[in-house]
Amino acid sequence: MASPRVLVVAGTHGNEINAPWLLDQWQKQPDLIETCGLEVVPVIGNPAAREQGRRYLDRDLNRSFRPDLLEEAAAGTSAVDREIARAHSLVRQYGPEAPKPCSVALDLHSTTAAMGSSLVVYGRRPADLALAAAVQQRLGLPVYLHEADQAQQGFLVERWPVGLVIEIGPVPQMVLDAQVVERTRLSLQACLQVLGEAHQGPMRCPVSLVVHRHLGSLDLPRNSKGEPDGCLHPARQGRDWCPLHPGDPLFLTADGREVRYDGPCGRVPVFINEAAYGEKGIALSLTEREVWTLAPEAPEALAAALA
Amino acid sequence: MASPRVLVVAGTHGNEINAPWLLDQWQKQPDLIETCGLEVVPVIGNPAAREQGRRYLDRDLNRSFRPDLLEEAAAGTSAVDREIARAHSLVRQYGPEAPKPCSVALDLHSTTAAMGSSLVVYGRRPADLALAAAVQQRLGLPVYLHEADQAQQGFLVERWPVGLVIEIGPVPQMVLDAQVVERTRLSLQACLQVLGEAHQGPMRCPVSLVVHRHLGSLDLPRNSKGEPDGCLHPARQGRDWCPLHPGDPLFLTADGREVRYDGPCGRVPVFINEAAYGEKGIALSLTEREVWTLAPEAPEALAAALA
Repeated sequence: MASPRVLVVAGTHGNEINAPWLLDQWQKQPDLIETCGLEVVPVIGNPAAREQGRRYLDRDLNRSFRPDLLEEAAAGTSAVDREIARAHSLVRQYGPEAPKPCSVALDLHSTTAAMGSSLVVYGRRPADLALAAAVQQRLGLPVYLHEADQAQQGFLVERWPVGLVIEIGPVPQMVLDAQVVERTRLSLQACLQVLGEAHQGPMRCPVSLVVHRHLGSLDLPRNSKGEPDGCLHPARQGRDWCPLHPGDPLFLTADGREVRYDGPCGRVPVFINEAAYGEKGIALSLTEREVWTLAPEAPEALAAALA
Repeated sequence: MASPRVLVVAGTHGNEINAPWLLDQWQKQPDLIETCGLEVVPVIGNPAAREQGRRYLDRDLNRSFRPDLLEEAAAGTSAVDREIARAHSLVRQYGPEAPKPCSVALDLHSTTAAMGSSLVVYGRRPADLALAAAVQQRLGLPVYLHEADQAQQGFLVERWPVGLVIEIGPVPQMVLDAQVVERTRLSLQACLQVLGEAHQGPMRCPVSLVVHRHLGSLDLPRNSKGEPDGCLHPARQGRDWCPLHPGDPLFLTADGREVRYDGPCGRVPVFINEAAYGEKGIALSLTEREVWTLAPEAPEALAAALA
């Protein structure tokens, strides 16, 4: 039985430096991460941006895996942004059509938001949900389910048969924090254990998982020129995963006014005040906490993807 | 009696966004900061870098105020880095030789290090020390005295007769944090109150001040290629101002080895793991805590500079 290949991507954003350091450590300490019978393929997502200590050079690499953009790069008829070319190159080298394809992509990120350790799943692919559910059962991590947001498309892991993001915070951009590295290692290790078990079978999978389903995002107040005219309310800073209630203070405008939340009860904010999302017009994203019964075919789909 | 002009600089580093926001707020809420009989001149230090969300474009603006660099820009015979040109322009517009000179420069910064609110003074100019001592008496802020470091020269405030840096942390680069803004405001307000009092006289000034005198910096362990081969030890993260003792864990190498501190007792680290200092080869700076008696002429020097 050949080992399934698992792509582990660090530094998809060039200023998130903890996961690349984990890969450096692992190279020097082979026992640091157990591969659980898998062939793990580590790669730096955006080495050119990493070199410059920037999130990206031309555009966000982790929004550059849209099929239309990849086709543009494949056609090669016109100059494309460097990140689109990089996305195309990663898919060509490691994607499902590569000579030695990877079945799974695990994409390691960090955030300035106080989200702790969490998993991000894109859409509702059964194999992704089985992987997330089994990791949640082991480590108790919250799962943020991102879907149906027209403004945010083209994530790396979507181009592999199975994939999820490991998101660790809070840590500033360009700060190497040994605890963040260790938390990244633990989450990655749990993913590999679940994948190894799913490959060798039988896989232990819970019957349900808790997801925080993405509903949309809120932007800062803006002035007529489109510039931010307010900041996050100090009472909201660092309170990711804590439900919002109508009337809760949300923003503070430059002229000193409080803007209060007036949406429905119980929405759960995530990515509160993430440094990189200002330019995307996202002050925080709103989710709904839901308990999903895992479809019986989900663990089978994961096992099949690894077969 | 004409009002002394006080230059208040925000955004000297383009990715430190809290102080610029304070200036925006102040414009909309004129009561937010009391000017204490001074003419306050607010300015964005590096608007071009701010526009791009980067610390700088060509080189660190706050190391570009060296006399030799400013002369280079003044000569105008060759193309200079954009930050050198900007430094020259700021000195020409607001410096001691300007048509309407500023007597004081207050430079507002933030750091990713867990330093709380602090003041940074460059060298031992009596007027700077009087200002720092009086602010320390009001707010209890620690004073980091930077001097005699050949690798770090050319700070903005050195080109004005009186000047200091207000340094607020921890906050990630590119994150606007209302509490950090408020702490910046409080420190700035205390500086303006002291300056107003020194101008109108008589100034209340303590007889002594506590300084943390800069001794030098420690770099991360590096490999033969000069790349970092270790990270800060997790036991040291966030412990700015806490004295180091021989044997304390300091770094963790990629191969898992602990590097311990082997210097003298009682050195006090600051700027631990500051994101922007990696490229400068500074993992932390070491200081010695000293209690200095303020020279009697120090308050007089401050008053004279404002006359």
